[in-house]
Amino acid sequence: MITTRTTRRLVGELLRTGNLRCLSWTPQGEVKREIARPSHTFVHDDLDIEIQPPHLRQKKPESAALQFGKHFADHMFESYWTRDSGWSQPKICPVHALQMHPAAKVLHYAQELFEGMKAFRGQDGRVRLFRPELNMERLLNSAERLGLPTFDPQEFLKCLMRLVEIDRDWVPSTPMSSLYIRPTFFGVEPTLGVARSSEAFLYVITGPVGAYYATGVKPVSLLADPQYVRAWPGGTGDKKLGCNYAPTLAVQKEADSLGLQQVLWLFGPDQQITEVGAMNIFVFLRSKDGEPELVTPPLSGIILPGIVRRSVLDMTRDWNLFKVSERPICMSELREALDEGRVMEMFGCGTACSISPIGRIYHRQNGHADDLLIPTMQSEWQLHARIMETLTNIQYGVVDHPWSLEID
Amino acid sequence: MITTRTTRRLVGELLRTGNLRCLSWTPQGEVKREIARPSHTFVHDDLDIEIQPPHLRQKKPESAALQFGKHFADHMFESYWTRDSGWSQPKICPVHALQMHPAAKVLHYAQELFEGMKAFRGQDGRVRLFRPELNMERLLNSAERLGLPTFDPQEFLKCLMRLVEIDRDWVPSTPMSSLYIRPTFFGVEPTLGVARSSEAFLYVITGPVGAYYATGVKPVSLLADPQYVRAWPGGTGDKKLGCNYAPTLAVQKEADSLGLQQVLWLFGPDQQITEVGAMNIFVFLRSKDGEPELVTPPLSGIILPGIVRRSVLDMTRDWNLFKVSERPICMSELREALDEGRVMEMFGCGTACSISPIGRIYHRQNGHADDLLIPTMQSEWQLHARIMETLTNIQYGVVDHPWSLEID
Repeated sequence: MITTRTTRRLVGELLRTGNLRCLSWTPQGEVKREIARPSHTFVHDDLDIEIQPPHLRQKKPESAALQFGKHFADHMFESYWTRDSGWSQPKICPVHALQMHPAAKVLHYAQELFEGMKAFRGQDGRVRLFRPELNMERLLNSAERLGLPTFDPQEFLKCLMRLVEIDRDWVPSTPMSSLYIRPTFFGVEPTLGVARSSEAFLYVITGPVGAYYATGVKPVSLLADPQYVRAWPGGTGDKKLGCNYAPTLAVQKEADSLGLQQVLWLFGPDQQITEVGAMNIFVFLRSKDGEPELVTPPLSGIILPGIVRRSVLDMTRDWNLFKVSERPICMSELREALDEGRVMEMFGCGTACSISPIGRIYHRQNGHADDLLIPTMQSEWQLHARIMETLTNIQYGVVDHPWSLEID
Repeated sequence: MITTRTTRRLVGELLRTGNLRCLSWTPQGEVKREIARPSHTFVHDDLDIEIQPPHLRQKKPESAALQFGKHFADHMFESYWTRDSGWSQPKICPVHALQMHPAAKVLHYAQELFEGMKAFRGQDGRVRLFRPELNMERLLNSAERLGLPTFDPQEFLKCLMRLVEIDRDWVPSTPMSSLYIRPTFFGVEPTLGVARSSEAFLYVITGPVGAYYATGVKPVSLLADPQYVRAWPGGTGDKKLGCNYAPTLAVQKEADSLGLQQVLWLFGPDQQITEVGAMNIFVFLRSKDGEPELVTPPLSGIILPGIVRRSVLDMTRDWNLFKVSERPICMSELREALDEGRVMEMFGCGTACSISPIGRIYHRQNGHADDLLIPTMQSEWQLHARIMETLTNIQYGVVDHPWSLEID
C-alpha cells in the first residue's frame, strides 16, 4: 500500500532495525490494488473478508456476566487512509492488536473520534440496528471538526452491517442485552508537529453488553458543581470526540469519592443544565399552571446531538400528551420547581445506557451543598419507563417501525 | 508482568487466536521482578537498558534537512503501570512500534498527555537541558487532571537524562538545532466504558530538530476570530493534554486557507488575548504616558503555564528595564494601542519554537475583518531578539546559568 514518504521512511527504519514487523494496516507482502488517483471512499463491494477459523474463535461470555465494554466479538472492520492515496481496500478480519509508531498523532494530539451503536436481537431471532444513518451523519460531522477525511456513509453502513452479520452469533438474546458497536477513527501520521494527520485509520469493533449500569435500572445520583465545565461555545461539545471525555475522568473520580454515580454538567453563571455523565438529560415537570412539560436543553453547540435524545423528542411529540420543549433550563428553575413539588421525573438517555432515571442531585456551590431528591421513581406518569418500553419495543422488533433496520 | 484480570483475558484471547504476538510493554518470556506490593514509582537504578547494535542504528539526517518532529533517535524510555501492581521495571530500548488493543482508552477517550523539552549541544560539545524540573512538575499536574497515576519526578528525570546520554550522538550541533524530547503518557486499559484507565503507559521518544518554522525566524501572521475558543474556566487549558490540541486542528486549517500561519486564541465577550497556536504570547507596548510594558495574560486557568513564558518573565523582571505584567489584555486595548502607535512588539514563545515574532493579525469579527500590522521587526528595542539571544546563550551554555542542567 502506498503511504506518505515520511511514514515509509519511519516505518522502514523500524522494520530494518527489526523492531516492527508490520503496521497492522499494512501487512507486508499483501498485494494491494493499484490506485490510480486518491480514493475518496472505500466501498462495500471491495471488502476483503478474512474469517477466523472456528477453532480460534473465542468462547462467548455468559449472558448474566456481561459487563459493558469488556468483551469483544471475533471480527473487526478496518480501512486506512492517506492523503496521497485516499482510502485503502476495506477489510473485515479477526480482531487484532493495533501497531503504531510512538509518534502517531492520536497518541499526542487526540485527533480521534468514535460512535456508539447497538445491534438488538428480537424474540424472532432477527438482528436490528436503531437509526444507524444518524450515527453515520454524526460521525462525518465529527471527522470534519477534527480535520479527518470523509467517506460515503452508505458504504460504511453496509460494511458495518456485514461485520454484524458475520458476528451475528455474538448478538446476545437475553432481555436488555445487545451487541455494542464502536466505530473509531483517528490520525496516525508519525510526526510530532501539531497538524492534521496525513494518515488515518477507521475501524469498528463490537462486543456483547448487558445493562450499562451494573446495578440495573435504579435511579442514579449526580454531582452538580458549576466549577466543572464539560463544553463551551466555540469548542467541540456537540461532536463525539475523544477530547470531550478525557477532561471528565477526574470529575467522575470526584463524584465517585462522594458516593455519586454520574456528573451533572452545568454551564454559565446561571448554571444551565446541559448533560449528565455521557448522556443527554430530560426534565419532566409541571408549569406553575399545572401544565406538564418535558424539557431538554437545545442543541446550542455545547450539547451532544444524541440519537436517543432525538428519538425521545420525536416519539413524545408524536404522542402529543404534553408539551415537549428544547429550551435552556437552569438549576434555579429546577430547584424552585422541586420546592414547589412540580418536578415529576428526570432521566438521562444515550445509546450505552438507554434511559437512566435520576433519583438525586448533590448540588454544590459557593462552599456548601444541598441534596436534591428527584421523585422520578414515584411519578404517576412513569414517563421514563414508558419511553424505555417504546424504545425497546422498536429496538427489539416487538413492533415494526421505520427506525429499525434489519441486518439480514 | 502482572496486569489486571480483564487485560490478561483480552490479551490472552488475542494471543490464542494468533493475532497478537505481544503487547510492546509485556514482551513474552521476559523475566520480571516479583512485585510484593504496588510500586508507586519506578526508579532510575532499576533501568533495564537494551542498546541497539551499531549495524541496526539509523542514519542521522543532514542538519540542514531537519524538520520538526519528523526524525527520531535510536532509543526510547518506557514504563508500564497497572492499578494492581504499580509501575513496572523502567526500560530504555530501541524505538519500536506500540501494540495495543483496539479498545485501549487512549484511542477512544483521549486519556493522554505529553511534555515538550529540548537538549542543546553547546560549542563546548556538552549537552544541556533547560529547566527540566518544571516539565516534570507540569507533567505530574497533567497526570492528576486526567486521573493517571503519578511517580517520582526526580527518578523520571534521571531516566530521561540517561536516555539523552545514550542517544547523545543524536543531539545536533548546528545553530538553533537541538534534540527534541517528547515524554508521553496515556491510559491503555482495553475496555470501552468512560472511566479512568487501570493501566497506563509512559514513554519518551526523542529526535533532532532544526527551527520550528521551516521559513526561519520570520514574523508570523495570525488569525484572530472570537468564534473559536481554545480553553475555558473549569476546563483543561492550563494542562498539557492531547485533548487541548485536537479541537485546534480544524481552526488551523481555516488559518492555512487564509494564508495565515497560526491562530490567535481569544476568550470571552471582551476578546481577551490568551495564546497563539501552541505558544504563549507577549505584547510589548507603551502606556499612554509612554511607559514601556511587557504584558502576558495571567495563569487564570485557561493559559498553559509555559516554561519559556516563565523564563521570559523571570529574565525581564531581572533586567528591570521596563514594567513586566501578567494581566489580561484584550483586542480592543491592542487595537487602540496600535492605532496610537504604542505597540512595539508581539511575540509567541514555547519550547518547540523558542521565540516567534508576530507581524500581522487578521482580526475577524461580526462578519468583517481587519488586517492589523504589528511593527515587531521595526522595533528599536528588538526585545524579542534580545530575549531569544539571552535564552539561547543559557540553553547552549554560552553563559553559565542555574537554568541549564548538564547531562554528563
